[in-house]
Amino acid sequence: MYKFEIDKIVEIIKRNNYRVVSLQFPDGLRDYSTSVAEKIDEKIPALITLISSNPCYGACDLVDEDAMNLGAEALFHFGHAQLLKKSRIPVYYIEVRLPHSFIDILEKNLDKLPENLGLVTTVQHIHRVKEVKDYLETHGFNVHTGRPEGRCKYEAQVLGCSFSAAKSIASEVDAFLYMGSGDFHPLGVALATGKPCFALDPLLKEIRSLEEKKEKFLKQRYATIAKAKNAESFGIIVGEKRGQRRLSLAMGIRRKLMAMNRKSFLIHAREITPENIIYFRKLDALVNTACPRIVIEDSPRFYNPLLTPKELEIVMGERDSYEMDEF
Amino acid sequence: MYKFEIDKIVEIIKRNNYRVVSLQFPDGLRDYSTSVAEKIDEKIPALITLISSNPCYGACDLVDEDAMNLGAEALFHFGHAQLLKKSRIPVYYIEVRLPHSFIDILEKNLDKLPENLGLVTTVQHIHRVKEVKDYLETHGFNVHTGRPEGRCKYEAQVLGCSFSAAKSIASEVDAFLYMGSGDFHPLGVALATGKPCFALDPLLKEIRSLEEKKEKFLKQRYATIAKAKNAESFGIIVGEKRGQRRLSLAMGIRRKLMAMNRKSFLIHAREITPENIIYFRKLDALVNTACPRIVIEDSPRFYNPLLTPKELEIVMGERDSYEMDEF
Repeated sequence: MYKFEIDKIVEIIKRNNYRVVSLQFPDGLRDYSTSVAEKIDEKIPALITLISSNPCYGACDLVDEDAMNLGAEALFHFGHAQLLKKSRIPVYYIEVRLPHSFIDILEKNLDKLPENLGLVTTVQHIHRVKEVKDYLETHGFNVHTGRPEGRCKYEAQVLGCSFSAAKSIASEVDAFLYMGSGDFHPLGVALATGKPCFALDPLLKEIRSLEEKKEKFLKQRYATIAKAKNAESFGIIVGEKRGQRRLSLAMGIRRKLMAMNRKSFLIHAREITPENIIYFRKLDALVNTACPRIVIEDSPRFYNPLLTPKELEIVMGERDSYEMDEF
Repeated sequence: MYKFEIDKIVEIIKRNNYRVVSLQFPDGLRDYSTSVAEKIDEKIPALITLISSNPCYGACDLVDEDAMNLGAEALFHFGHAQLLKKSRIPVYYIEVRLPHSFIDILEKNLDKLPENLGLVTTVQHIHRVKEVKDYLETHGFNVHTGRPEGRCKYEAQVLGCSFSAAKSIASEVDAFLYMGSGDFHPLGVALATGKPCFALDPLLKEIRSLEEKKEKFLKQRYATIAKAKNAESFGIIVGEKRGQRRLSLAMGIRRKLMAMNRKSFLIHAREITPENIIYFRKLDALVNTACPRIVIEDSPRFYNPLLTPKELEIVMGERDSYEMDEF
């Protein structure tokens, strides 16, 4: 099992004399939620421990308000680094580190990488940055890491809505090396920086280039953008989640669409799923101002063409090149 | 299109000088949301109109907090009668009446009904109660209607979580006549009262008895109850929605389970769907303290046996006969 820092959690609860707490896990860790709750309960039998079962895709998605409404005095949010400054009840971030090592994969794949590398990763692997950087440097690579900016907390950290640590060093590197699984983050790095990005994947145990996926992705996105060019009516989606509310961006989009004689509606939503949005199928296109990941990963599942605000700028002729939507 | 009382809404907005409002529709009416928003916008061009796209199954499920967090000064909640007394911003209930008439179906089916009838319906058809009662009485029936209690607002009204208007007159009638479509409400009336219930269905244009469905339903429920009898671990689900929070009920259930040496966990959730609850598949059974309709209609879609609090009482040997979970 991952390390969930039970002793630290128990100490926080005892020190603050909390009687009701909520535990929030991202989808990938929620399988462990009952064993974490059980371990805490064993040490503090009088505690009322609530477990959130809502979808959770990031630290932007705190369940603090709902937990507070149920009487929780504190929230333990697992698996993400702190992102939001304000919360309704105290929020304790329990960053869960994944145990994967990257050195064995690197050993067999060093010939795939160019000399000047930018190293990036997500918070789960952030404790491996120094080790991987040192290993690469002893093998003749120049390794750069970018400072944390905005929503990020750590050197070399990227989020689905912030690639600043990569962008800040893009001019110094030949390519990026992303440590972690999945295509979403390394694809984002490649798109946000314009540089090639390699994924150092601890689950598939491989180093792969994202270039082909990037080309395929851009073709899909430009096809969606083309579809939206003749749209007469737009739905502008505003997220309700704590760290995803961008009403002023949505209102700016609406003003521009009105100036171009396009009809538009402001739609607010908590979970932006095809099932919740199907009621707006009569609208010719949708613009999502909440989590950028929804458009990038789920767009094909939606009935209407679904765009990011930056993609809408291409539709409106305000922008030429593709750009990631970042917070 | 249904009557959405646009003039009344416009007058409320103008009188209160609202600049930002949210419109909330139940799933069955959300298809009309953009045309309602458009009609309001035409009359008050400076207004910022937001449309909620979250699932909404009742007046217990107000989106007032989320709308307020986005800057809305008032919420227009369509299709349900007022249920909750408190809200974070002013809530205006726009009760949408369905146009269906019931007389033509009654005319052809009078021989199916017994002499002493209890008449019940949901708020969408409440304006037809008098007409149907008068028609039946001129044809020799004795028709009873129950007073509104608790969560209900109108004479003869039932909700998915309150059958009090039926229960209060059960001893005076041979059977109930439910005006409306779907099986959920008339099945609830039959189960809550122990009397036969007939559905007067304006969509299928028929009168049907719910007796067979009730038998089938009870068989399914007792099978689920039997499965839960040997359960060692339980998840107790607490709803986060405004009118579905029953933490004290959940805590009472947990105390009883602990006394019986059963393991249990308090799980809080906004939308209680199989997708959100799959993470708790290791638990032997679940008890849902939020909307009763989830167990009654969706139980087969869940991985774990899913029970109402009243069904759990049968599991624990505290109750013999089946009873509906009501608020």
